[in-house]
Amino acid sequence: MQTHEYYIRQCLELAVKGEGQVSPNPMVGSVVLDKNDEIVGKSYHQKYGEPHAEVNALDIASNKAKHGTIYVNLEPCSHYGKTPPCADRIIKEGIKKVVIGMQDPNPKVAGNGIKKLNDAGIEVITGILEDECKKLNEIFIKNIKHKKPFIVVKTASTIDGKIATSKKSSKWITSEKARDRVQQLRNKYDAILTGSGTVLEDDPTLNCRMDGGRNPVRIIIDSTLKTPPSAKVYKQCGTPVCVAVADSIEDNKIKKYPDHINFIKCPLNDAQKIDLNYLTQKLYENNIYSIMIEAGGSLNGAFIKENLIDKLYLFLAPKILGDNKGSSLFDGLNIENISQCKNIKIENIEILSPDLLLESYFIN
Amino acid sequence: MQTHEYYIRQCLELAVKGEGQVSPNPMVGSVVLDKNDEIVGKSYHQKYGEPHAEVNALDIASNKAKHGTIYVNLEPCSHYGKTPPCADRIIKEGIKKVVIGMQDPNPKVAGNGIKKLNDAGIEVITGILEDECKKLNEIFIKNIKHKKPFIVVKTASTIDGKIATSKKSSKWITSEKARDRVQQLRNKYDAILTGSGTVLEDDPTLNCRMDGGRNPVRIIIDSTLKTPPSAKVYKQCGTPVCVAVADSIEDNKIKKYPDHINFIKCPLNDAQKIDLNYLTQKLYENNIYSIMIEAGGSLNGAFIKENLIDKLYLFLAPKILGDNKGSSLFDGLNIENISQCKNIKIENIEILSPDLLLESYFIN
Repeated sequence: MQTHEYYIRQCLELAVKGEGQVSPNPMVGSVVLDKNDEIVGKSYHQKYGEPHAEVNALDIASNKAKHGTIYVNLEPCSHYGKTPPCADRIIKEGIKKVVIGMQDPNPKVAGNGIKKLNDAGIEVITGILEDECKKLNEIFIKNIKHKKPFIVVKTASTIDGKIATSKKSSKWITSEKARDRVQQLRNKYDAILTGSGTVLEDDPTLNCRMDGGRNPVRIIIDSTLKTPPSAKVYKQCGTPVCVAVADSIEDNKIKKYPDHINFIKCPLNDAQKIDLNYLTQKLYENNIYSIMIEAGGSLNGAFIKENLIDKLYLFLAPKILGDNKGSSLFDGLNIENISQCKNIKIENIEILSPDLLLESYFIN
Repeated sequence: MQTHEYYIRQCLELAVKGEGQVSPNPMVGSVVLDKNDEIVGKSYHQKYGEPHAEVNALDIASNKAKHGTIYVNLEPCSHYGKTPPCADRIIKEGIKKVVIGMQDPNPKVAGNGIKKLNDAGIEVITGILEDECKKLNEIFIKNIKHKKPFIVVKTASTIDGKIATSKKSSKWITSEKARDRVQQLRNKYDAILTGSGTVLEDDPTLNCRMDGGRNPVRIIIDSTLKTPPSAKVYKQCGTPVCVAVADSIEDNKIKKYPDHINFIKCPLNDAQKIDLNYLTQKLYENNIYSIMIEAGGSLNGAFIKENLIDKLYLFLAPKILGDNKGSSLFDGLNIENISQCKNIKIENIEILSPDLLLESYFIN
């Protein structure tokens, strides 16, 4: 007999197979044991709109689930969504014990699934590997709790925080291994966002070059619409392109761009820049649940200033630029006293020899 | 019976007890086993001028060392220095086997100790935990091979490489835990070096506030002698103070400073700054075998530009300043292309929650 942690860890490993396919749903995995504690079914939520993990695992277990145990990293749902409530199916199968990683933060569920199971006389154990479960579904939790997209900044610098020299040289700061890792990250998030400066300087494609990866939605912030219609990022490649422009941009100007581009007209803030709160809310309403920003220091800084960033992926290269006139990772926060710095919490360090990847969360 | 690695690791643990006491000698520990492989003596080199580790350990083992084994992290010496050759003593004790971490880089020894033991019919095994042994005595190795001091930079920044805001606010970037760690580092190196800017702005004492720690020699670089004689760093506290000034500084000006201060007159380079190659060579001739630089970005950068730095201790605080106008960790390298960056190798990451300490070596 293994521990609860053992099986919930299996659920997490199954769940993550749905990454990039189930948004805006959470990633969920499930393991079913029979009455002798033998595994008789395991599966995960594979695609948005298709059956939940518990149903897939119970389908495999078939009648062997009776008097058995089901493990799942998220509380089974109790409401009718695109599929019937999983709690009902668990009760129907005659399961004796349900072990859950974390309670569902969705107010439509939030303990009701557990209550329904308890009311049916089923033993429910919850909070197993809760931190790992929460981390796996951090996007879903942010969405459900705040009705806002989960936003991450991905950036790369020398050990002294520089992304370019005073002459704008910026290639390459990190190694190939680190740049491959970026492709994996691009598969995690619904959209990639960058600024007009990056498009004008680097002319990136912003696609996901990972085998089996999906292309994220591409979002360009270009208040005065100075990027050319011929930019690579505007080429059609199966996923939408959005361009955030100022309210005042005339439709005549927009007409010069390919038809498949979605323009989002946004109000400007006091600094005559796109209102990022407005834009991100608009994107959320358009089913963009997570965004990875890959931009220069000013745009990164503008998002940080508005407390819109949840997470930072910082690739650190073992190089020293040694120049106050080089471009820094983040700019424009106008902080005069060290005590006013924005605080983050470094949660994980990945060694991508010779580089490091620091994974941090903002403490807003 | 334990492995050779097991006993050499014991030697290393013993050796490090001599840290701060044996310079310019290497740190050495030794373990003696009797003919039945029981430990019968262990000790280390405790103080410069006093007996070597092997002699101390053999003294403890006394006549039980006969037909036994001696472990030592550095090749036993074969020459007469302040004490007689350890190789001779090992032979005299009737030791059967000698296990060594690394060969002595000192050209006066360099394999002669091993040869002497071999010639006496003793089995010698060498290269056990060699990398760890070399790291422990990296200062000694640099000194012996290059006749130059081992120089480290210790600095602390936000995650975006800033050491001060545009308004010069710099306190505190790191946590108390990180600042305590600095006190330990101060005990490792013969001298602490800083610039006139740091003295004028922070008025530091630059002493070692660790229990049982020794105060390092304090070195101030002040080409125009603008620091006031009343600066805290110029107070007498048992260890020397050196001030590096331009050749042209008049003795009349120097006379206004306390008598215990040693002034080193140095030539200036093209940028009208102290010639750091000259200074560090001068310091080496004055028995300063290792230096820790705790200075601002310009002085740190000047040392890096001259390829004088061996090692970097970088404390990274989980804070974002977000301002291109803030002061960076290193300045003045005048690098225009990313490919010209100075390269380092990150060797160790220490978690000093919430900060990180990256320990890196320069690849010159």
